[in-house]
Amino acid sequence: MSLEGPYDSQNIFAKMLRGEMACVKAFEDDVALAIMDVFPQSPGHTLVLPKIPARNFLDLPADKVGPYIERVQRLARAVRKAFSPDGVTIMQFNGAAAGQSVFHAHFHIVPRWEGVNIKRHGAAGMADQEELKAQAAKIASALQSN
Amino acid sequence: MSLEGPYDSQNIFAKMLRGEMACVKAFEDDVALAIMDVFPQSPGHTLVLPKIPARNFLDLPADKVGPYIERVQRLARAVRKAFSPDGVTIMQFNGAAAGQSVFHAHFHIVPRWEGVNIKRHGAAGMADQEELKAQAAKIASALQSN
Repeated sequence: MSLEGPYDSQNIFAKMLRGEMACVKAFEDDVALAIMDVFPQSPGHTLVLPKIPARNFLDLPADKVGPYIERVQRLARAVRKAFSPDGVTIMQFNGAAAGQSVFHAHFHIVPRWEGVNIKRHGAAGMADQEELKAQAAKIASALQSN
Repeated sequence: MSLEGPYDSQNIFAKMLRGEMACVKAFEDDVALAIMDVFPQSPGHTLVLPKIPARNFLDLPADKVGPYIERVQRLARAVRKAFSPDGVTIMQFNGAAAGQSVFHAHFHIVPRWEGVNIKRHGAAGMADQEELKAQAAKIASALQSN
């Protein structure tokens, strides 16, 4: 998939946003949805999706960037609070050549620990659903108390 | 350096923001400064710094996030226009364990090409200053015509 092109409303994140496909939610409001990555590169790997049909971050209307990224920051702080990592890596990929695999804009929030490299996406296989739900609950609780 | 701690006003980005240290500027306004990374992971590797003393993205006051990230998006679009990459990777590191080496908040904008892995930071050595200046001029010109 190239960097430019039309938005495909059948991508899996669009289906999750419409409730047509299951996902493990950590946060949701009218601007964004945060879900646990099913192929985590580190425990607590969270994705934040804007609730508008944008293929990637470059395609987001400029006036929608601020409110969306405020949610990304709020989630990143909650991830830090929930898992007490040594660091937090934030990544966002535009185009397949950049590592994008689902063509609805999303930011990755990846907790990091000293001396532990992050896994290649998918390398560790699919995460246990119950584990993801427990992580999402920790993040939701951290958001409440932030 | 841990994830939390005081802001050190002697970090090299703070010095660049104060004009005490040279840098190759691609963009500057009252909110942000964009410079060419001297250890590019890919040609056109650009950094966007907010003009307030925040150690990392998590430490940025929430009401400063929107205007700053709008600049990040504007620069990412200009980088795409200037270099016509196949993709654009955006990265932001909080804490040394996440890969942060300068403790003033910054987003990396890294142009990507099909089949070319990005280099480890610093692996390619320091970039040629004249080359960086030419890249910055291309980005500045792309910003004008965007």
